[in-house]
Parts: sequence; structure tokens; C-alpha cells
Amino acid sequence: MSKYVFGVDVGGTTIKMGFFTVEGELLEKWEIPTRRENNSENVLPDIAKQIDLKLEEKNITKDQVAGVGFGVPGPVTREGIVKMNANLGWKDKMVAKELGELTGLKCMGGNDVKTAGLGEMWRGSAAEFENAVFLTLGTGVGAAIIVEGKVILGAMGASGEIGHIKVDMEETRSCGCGGIGCTEQYASATGLKRMAVELLEKCDTPSVLREKEVDAKAVFDAYKEGDALAVQVVEKFGHYLGYTLAATAAVIDPEAFIIGGGVSKAGEPLLEVVKKYYKQYVWPGCRDKVFVLAALGNDAGIYGAASYVL
Amino acid sequence: MSKYVFGVDVGGTTIKMGFFTVEGELLEKWEIPTRRENNSENVLPDIAKQIDLKLEEKNITKDQVAGVGFGVPGPVTREGIVKMNANLGWKDKMVAKELGELTGLKCMGGNDVKTAGLGEMWRGSAAEFENAVFLTLGTGVGAAIIVEGKVILGAMGASGEIGHIKVDMEETRSCGCGGIGCTEQYASATGLKRMAVELLEKCDTPSVLREKEVDAKAVFDAYKEGDALAVQVVEKFGHYLGYTLAATAAVIDPEAFIIGGGVSKAGEPLLEVVKKYYKQYVWPGCRDKVFVLAALGNDAGIYGAASYVL
Repeated sequence: MSKYVFGVDVGGTTIKMGFFTVEGELLEKWEIPTRRENNSENVLPDIAKQIDLKLEEKNITKDQVAGVGFGVPGPVTREGIVKMNANLGWKDKMVAKELGELTGLKCMGGNDVKTAGLGEMWRGSAAEFENAVFLTLGTGVGAAIIVEGKVILGAMGASGEIGHIKVDMEETRSCGCGGIGCTEQYASATGLKRMAVELLEKCDTPSVLREKEVDAKAVFDAYKEGDALAVQVVEKFGHYLGYTLAATAAVIDPEAFIIGGGVSKAGEPLLEVVKKYYKQYVWPGCRDKVFVLAALGNDAGIYGAASYVL
Repeated sequence: MSKYVFGVDVGGTTIKMGFFTVEGELLEKWEIPTRRENNSENVLPDIAKQIDLKLEEKNITKDQVAGVGFGVPGPVTREGIVKMNANLGWKDKMVAKELGELTGLKCMGGNDVKTAGLGEMWRGSAAEFENAVFLTLGTGVGAAIIVEGKVILGAMGASGEIGHIKVDMEETRSCGCGGIGCTEQYASATGLKRMAVELLEKCDTPSVLREKEVDAKAVFDAYKEGDALAVQVVEKFGHYLGYTLAATAAVIDPEAFIIGGGVSKAGEPLLEVVKKYYKQYVWPGCRDKVFVLAALGNDAGIYGAASYVL
């Protein structure tokens, strides 16, 4: 009888491990570093070892474990193959198969953002919606597109790349994707910081940001205090992200937008500024959508990973 | 034993009727006018009468008919209710139920664009794709979003409203939806005509369009001859539509774009100009998508309607 399941969220710096009951109760979570040397050859063996150690510690046999779910950055096929991941140095890596052989357990997984979206569907803010967009605002901007209760993959696992919808035709700098003027260049933590630093250099407007280290949190903190320069930066952030969510709504007509990732810690004021511009750009039939913060924070990935197996 | 099925495509001017075998062979098609007086109260009785007459003519009993499928403009719920249709004067009209009572047959249906998309999936250009966007360029711009072999509805039946993605922030004129700078204002038959007429008035560039009635077909004909003014108009059309399809790809990652509607009669040159701008704006992982013309033309609606019942 399967009683337990593991959920593993593989990031570029750390691997988050979760040990759950099959009912979805998180019994324990911990992290190990992502050892990226030699094309991350140790990553899967390290995960397998952590699973063995945990089971030994708890005196649990493998026949009591339903399996291991995982989330990995970049596109992942239905079969659990990572086509290409520059960060980890993986190419056509059969993650599900290899991890299955290393652990002797059923292994299934997908892209990390889609996996976090699954987590929010299973145990978080997306649980009550059949159609929704789960958005993560972190180093980049990614989304999981939920249609009729399922996170859709797309033809090549590339659905939800709305961070690369073009929003600024005057931009001269390139995005990481090679495009110019992508949403991600403004609506990510990196983008917020860059916009603030540039504006601080370009003008003399007094700002609390002149006296501290500038990052996404500092920008939103200053915004909440009414700092004029931070207001300019956050309005631009809200404008571009609101536009992109309006375009997304025109394609799939979701019930709700669930906003997660590090930047979402700014809370309600972030939702308000995004909603303001969303309503300006969206087709009138889609004006009244729910905007809500993600509930699981950094744990969304391990929850979603576990849910693959169940 | 059900051998036959009807497919009905209700438009603002005409109602297209199709009589099919359950295998999908179109045996006969014909049209009747849409009588819109008194909130189109005659439309459903007229359809029921046509069905009775056809069965009488063919000496076919109703137990040999699987049912009647229909497509109607505007949002239609899963239960076949038209929430609001200004053109027909319908509000909370229970089309499936009423037509079922009038005909004594099983009736099911949906929005006209989504229905045409179903038709292309069943018997047309979308048949080989699991994930695709069926686009109709007519008086307006509408789309059916096909995900994993199904046309998705969205939260309120408003998926595929990509004609209302904003593309021109300098526009001063309003779209029919109340927004400003919508794709539909440039990528529809109406939009092409308006852009050409305005440009003809504004400049002195010689153009074959100065000597004839200007419509979408005339603009594309002149474009194919290299007419400088028509080239300007079609480039703007391609630019805005290409942008919008790139944004759409970032959301759902389809395999293909299937382009139908009256404007699509312009053929390959239309696909080429749209593709050029699509590639300029799209996320690199989605560059190589199939662009193809719809196969069923005006019959897509009756095919799709019939497919609801099967």
C-alpha cells in the first residue's frame, strides 16, 4: 500500500526535497545544493541518495512509496525528457527514466513553472479554478496555463512563455531570449532592479533608493511609501505586465491570475497596479477576473512535483 | 440506427444548412435568409421547418437522424445558451433546448468561430494538429483555440478573442468593443478597407486602388501586383496580425495557425507577410510553426456544427 510520495524541485542553486503523505500532507522538507559541475552529473544520484537516506531514517520500505515527482527548469517532454537546459548542462536527458533506475521508484515530472502551477492547483490558490494563469515573477517571468483543470504543455512544452510577449518597441537592449522589449525585461526582479538603477542614474529626483542597495523588494518598499522614483518604476512594471495579462486573457479567457515568485512578496499593492493596467487593455468581456497571490510560496514546486505521481 | 446529422451555421444575414451522413459526408447544403425582425423570433422555427422539409423530401424518419448541431455568433455556454447577441437580439436564449423542442431531435452547439474551428479539425486543415489556432479574418477577427485536440471555451466562452489584443497605442479611433488599437481594427476586411481609404486620402502616391472600389480583395490584388500604396497597407496588416499571433504562441505554443475567413482568399502572399512579422516578434522557441490556409471555406461552420452531435 502506497502511503508516501516525494516531490523534488530542481533549481540552478538548490534542490528542494519534500516528503509527503499520498493525501498531500507535507511531512518534511529540506534542501541540498545543486552540484552543477560536469554537466550536473551528480544531481540525479544526489536526489536518489537523499530519498534512500530519508526512507532509512524513517524505517520505511520502498513498496510504501508511490513514487518521485520532479520539476526542472526549461521545457520537459511528456516522457520526462529535458531537451535542453543550459543552466544544468543537460541535453536530451531522460530524467524520469534515469531517476527511476537510480531509485527503483516510479518517477514523473515536468517543467518547474508548470510544476509550481500544479502545486497551486493541488493545495494552493488555484485549487478553486478550472481555468487560470499561474504566474511566477522571479529572476524571469514564467507562467503555467491551466485549462479545464489541467496545466497545458503546448506543442513542444513551451506554453506559458508570456514573459516573452513584446511590450516595448522602443527598447534597445536584448532579452536573454534574444528578443527585444520582452515583458520579462520589466516585470521580473531583475527588470525592476535594472529600471530603478537606470532611472536613478538618469535623473535627480530625490529617492530613498539612493541610500540603499536597490533590488525588487527595495523598489516595492519605496513604492509603498510613495517614493516618486519608485512609483515611476512600479507603474512601468504594472503597465507592461497588465498589458501582457490582458493579451493572455484574450487567448484563453481564464477565471483568475495567480501571482507567485519572489516579486509577489510585495503583496496587494502589486496586484493593484497590475490590475489597473490590465483593465485598461483587456477586452471588456474579460475585465472582471480574479487577481490573487500564490499561497504556497517556495513550496509550490515540491507540492506540484508530488502531485505528478498521484 | 442514426445515419444522418444536420449542421446549421446561423449568421446575421443567412443561415447555412448542411445535411450530412454520420461519417461526415456532406450530402446537401443550402441557405435561407436570417429573419431578424422581432428579436429573430423566427430563426429557430425556420431552421426546424427546413429540417422537416428536407426529411420529408428524402423520405427519412427522425429516428434515422443523430441530431442537429449549430453555430451562433457570440459567446455560447456549454449548455447551448446564448447569453447575449446584439445582432440577433437574443439574451439568455436557450437555443439548444428550444431547437430540441421544435425539432424533436438532439441539439447541441456553440459559438460560430469555435464551430468553424471544429469543422476544420474534423474535415479540414486542422485535422492533423492536436494544438492549433484557427483564425477567421472576416468583418472581424476571431479565433478558435485548439488545445490537445479540443476547442477550448475559457471561463465564459470568451477564449480566442485575440482580435482584441491591443497593437497600436497611437490609434485614436475606437474598436467595436470599446477598446482602442485592437488587432481587429487592422487585420479584418473592414480594417484593410479603412486603412487603404485613409491612406489614399492622405497621400498622393499613385495606386491602382484610386480607380476602383476599395475592399480587402482589391487591396490584396493590388499588393500582389506590387502597388506601393497597397504594399504599405498590407505590411501594416501583416505587422499587427503577426505580432498578435506571436503573443498567442507565447501563451499556448500551438503547432499551427490555420487562417480562414473571407480575407484568407488572398492566399499564400497573406501567409507570407504574416509569417514575416510573426518571426520578428515571437519567442525563438516558437519560431517554426506551420501557417496554412483553412480548407473548408464557408462550409467550415456547417461541418463543425454537425460534429457537435457526433
